[in-house]
Amino acid sequence: MGIVVQKFGGTSVSSAEKREQVVRKIKHAVDEGSRVVVVVSAMGRAGEPYATDTLIGLAREISKQIRPRELDLLMSCGEIISSVIMVQTLRSHGLDAVALTGAQAGIVTDYHFNNAHIKEVHPAKILKLLDEGKIVVVAGFQGATGDGEITTLGRGGSDTTAAALGVALKADVVEIYTDVDGVMTADPRMVPQAKPLDTLTYQELCEMAHLGAKVVHPRAVEIAMEGRIPLRIRSTFADGPGTLVADGAPIGSIEIRRDKIVTGLAHLAGMALVTIRSKDDLNENGMVLDVFEIMADSGISVDMIQVAPYQIRFIIDEQRMEQAEQVLSRTGLDVTIEPGFAKVAIVGSGMRGVPGVMAKMVKGLRQAEIAIYHSVDSHTNIACLVKQEAMSKALQALHFQFLN
Amino acid sequence: MGIVVQKFGGTSVSSAEKREQVVRKIKHAVDEGSRVVVVVSAMGRAGEPYATDTLIGLAREISKQIRPRELDLLMSCGEIISSVIMVQTLRSHGLDAVALTGAQAGIVTDYHFNNAHIKEVHPAKILKLLDEGKIVVVAGFQGATGDGEITTLGRGGSDTTAAALGVALKADVVEIYTDVDGVMTADPRMVPQAKPLDTLTYQELCEMAHLGAKVVHPRAVEIAMEGRIPLRIRSTFADGPGTLVADGAPIGSIEIRRDKIVTGLAHLAGMALVTIRSKDDLNENGMVLDVFEIMADSGISVDMIQVAPYQIRFIIDEQRMEQAEQVLSRTGLDVTIEPGFAKVAIVGSGMRGVPGVMAKMVKGLRQAEIAIYHSVDSHTNIACLVKQEAMSKALQALHFQFLN
Repeated sequence: MGIVVQKFGGTSVSSAEKREQVVRKIKHAVDEGSRVVVVVSAMGRAGEPYATDTLIGLAREISKQIRPRELDLLMSCGEIISSVIMVQTLRSHGLDAVALTGAQAGIVTDYHFNNAHIKEVHPAKILKLLDEGKIVVVAGFQGATGDGEITTLGRGGSDTTAAALGVALKADVVEIYTDVDGVMTADPRMVPQAKPLDTLTYQELCEMAHLGAKVVHPRAVEIAMEGRIPLRIRSTFADGPGTLVADGAPIGSIEIRRDKIVTGLAHLAGMALVTIRSKDDLNENGMVLDVFEIMADSGISVDMIQVAPYQIRFIIDEQRMEQAEQVLSRTGLDVTIEPGFAKVAIVGSGMRGVPGVMAKMVKGLRQAEIAIYHSVDSHTNIACLVKQEAMSKALQALHFQFLN
Repeated sequence: MGIVVQKFGGTSVSSAEKREQVVRKIKHAVDEGSRVVVVVSAMGRAGEPYATDTLIGLAREISKQIRPRELDLLMSCGEIISSVIMVQTLRSHGLDAVALTGAQAGIVTDYHFNNAHIKEVHPAKILKLLDEGKIVVVAGFQGATGDGEITTLGRGGSDTTAAALGVALKADVVEIYTDVDGVMTADPRMVPQAKPLDTLTYQELCEMAHLGAKVVHPRAVEIAMEGRIPLRIRSTFADGPGTLVADGAPIGSIEIRRDKIVTGLAHLAGMALVTIRSKDDLNENGMVLDVFEIMADSGISVDMIQVAPYQIRFIIDEQRMEQAEQVLSRTGLDVTIEPGFAKVAIVGSGMRGVPGVMAKMVKGLRQAEIAIYHSVDSHTNIACLVKQEAMSKALQALHFQFLN
C-alpha cells in the first residue's frame, strides 16, 4: 500500500467548516487505499488565540527581545495544538489517527533556531503507526536537534516537513493543499487571464517560488526534487487535480513534457534598487568583496546582482533600505538606493537554449510602455525590474506575450 | 553554591502584576547566592486563552472523547508557554534565564498518560545551565517516556516536578509558592482562628494533604520525604517565612520539634457513607473481597473502611454514589448509601502513643453537639465523619480543643 503525505496550511485547519474539507481529502486518500500521513501548520492568522503570531505577541509584550531558542519552544506549541485538533476531528469521523510532534516524527535538525534545516528523518515510528492502520498527523514546521532542543524550520516550514517526510517514507506523492487550484501561470490578482498549470518541473516551481510565487516553499521543492518524490499542489476547497510537480524525465509513470517556452510568471514587489558607483576599479581595490561581505554580515539578502568594474547594482527588500544605507556608508563609495521597484519574471525550463526569448520579453514590455530598470537571467528564467506601479501591467503584457 | 527549586502555580504567572511578585522571589534567592531552578504551571484558570482547561475545551468541542496520549500532548503546551513567558519576564529584569520542557529537564516517566509517575530524573542539562549562571525555568506537570512520548503527571503535577527536581539536584530546599502564608492549622475559611504553622513533618503534611488540605500534592511530599529534601510552603504575595516541612529527625541544620499533640486539622466535604449489611458472615462467604474488588474495578476510591463480620462501612465521593449503587447491587447484599457527610480530622505525629486523644476529640465534638457517624484512626491522625452542615462547627470546636 502506497503512502501519501498531505500538507494542510493554517487556514485549512482554523475553523470547523474548513476542517471538514480537510477530512474529506484525507478520507478520499484512505478510500483509495493509501496509507496517509498528514502535516499541519498552526491554526489561523494573527489575532486568533492559538496562531503563532498571537503566541509570539504574548511573549513580546513582556520583552521585545525573545531569544531564538525560546521562540522556537513557544512556536512549536502552535503546530502541536493543531495536530491534536486534527486528530480529534478525524476521530469524530470514525477515522483512527494519532498526533506526533516533529521530534516524535523523527525530524532531526541542525541547531539554527528559527530557521533550522532538516538533517535526517527517522521514519520508524511513523511506519509502525501506519502499519497499525492509523492516520499519522505530524505537527509541521518543527523538529529537534540530536540532543532534544526544539527547533522550527522557518518560513514555509510545514511544506518542508511534508517534503522531507515524503522522501523518507518513499511516498507515492506529497500533496500540498492551499486555497488556490494549483500553480497558476501568474498571480490571478495581477493577471485575470492566469490559468492553472497541469504540470510543472521541480526546477520551474523552485524558480517561481524563489521569484516570489507563494504556492510552496522553495526548500520543500528542492527536497522533493532531490528525493524524486512528486508534489501535487491542489485546493483544499475544490476537487480539481491541481498541479503535478515532478522531474522533466519520467519518474515511474509520471513524466512532464514541455511544449511551451515559458511555463509561468512570478513577481516580487517592494524592492529597492541599490547602485554603487566608483571612479576606481572596484575589482582592483577589493571593494566588490567588501560590499557583499558587509551585506552578508548585516543579514540583508541581495538579489539581481550585477557587478561591473565601476558599478555594482543589486536589489534588496525595501524594509532593509535604511539599514543598508547605514552599513554601506562605511565603504565611502557613492551609494544610491531607490525604493518602489518590482521584479517580474518569466520562468520555464523550455527556454533553455531557445534564442529570442529576451527579445520577446522586451518587446512585450515595450508595447505596454513599461521601462526596464535592471535585469538578470539564468537558463530557466529572465527577470526584469520595473516600477512597482507598472508591475500588474507588466505581468499582463508578459502573460499575453508568452502564455496566451 | 546551593540549589533552590521554586515552584509557582498557574495563578502566580497569569498576569504581569503577579509575575512581578514571582520575579521578586526569584531575585531574592539569586541575591542570596543560590542557583535557582523555577518550575511553573500553565497560566491561569479556565476561560483564559492559554489555560489548560481552555486547550482541552477546544479539543472536546470537536469530539467529547480525547485519548489520554493526545490530551497530554495538548496539555503539555500550557506549561511550555508559561515557561517561555516566565523566561521573557526574567530577561526583561536583566536576569539570564532559559526555558526547558519536562523532557528537556530530564523528567522520565512511565506510560500512564494523564497520570504518569516519574521514574527517573536526569539532571545533567539543568546542572550545566546552572553552571553557566542561568536561571532554569522548567515546564511543570510534564515529562516524557524513554522513547519520547509526552506525558503529564496528573493533579498537583507541578509540585511533583519541583520535588523530583529538588531530590535529583540535591537542592537545599524546594519552595512551593501559593496564595496562602503557608500550611495553616485549619482551613481559614472554616476556622477563623486558624494560624500558619512554622514547621510540619513530611508525614503530617502528607496526612493533611491526603485528608483534604489542598496546599501541596501528597505525591510531591512523599518524593521530598524519600529524598530528605526540605519543602517550604510560602506565599508569592507576602514576605513571611511560610511553613518549613522536613523530617522529625534532624536533616543537616533543620530539625522539627513537636511540642503539640495535634498539628493541624483537615477536612473533606461531599462524602457519602456506604453501609453493607448481611445475615451471613461476610468473611466466610468471601463477600468482603467481592465488595472491594467491585469498587476497585469500577475505579471508585474508598476511604474510612471498617470491616466487621456482618457489616462493611466506608465512604466514597458523593459524585460516585449512583455508580456505586449500581455495581454493588450485583452482590445481592443489603446496601444503603447516604450522602451529605464530611470528614473532619486531627493530624499530628505528636499524638503517637499519647493516651486520651480520641477522648478529647469526642469531648470537643460532643460539647458542640455534633454527632459522629463513623471514625477511623491511625498513629498520626483521627478522622470522624460528621454531617456536612456541621463540618465548619466541628472544625472550630476541634481547633479550640487542640490548637488554642
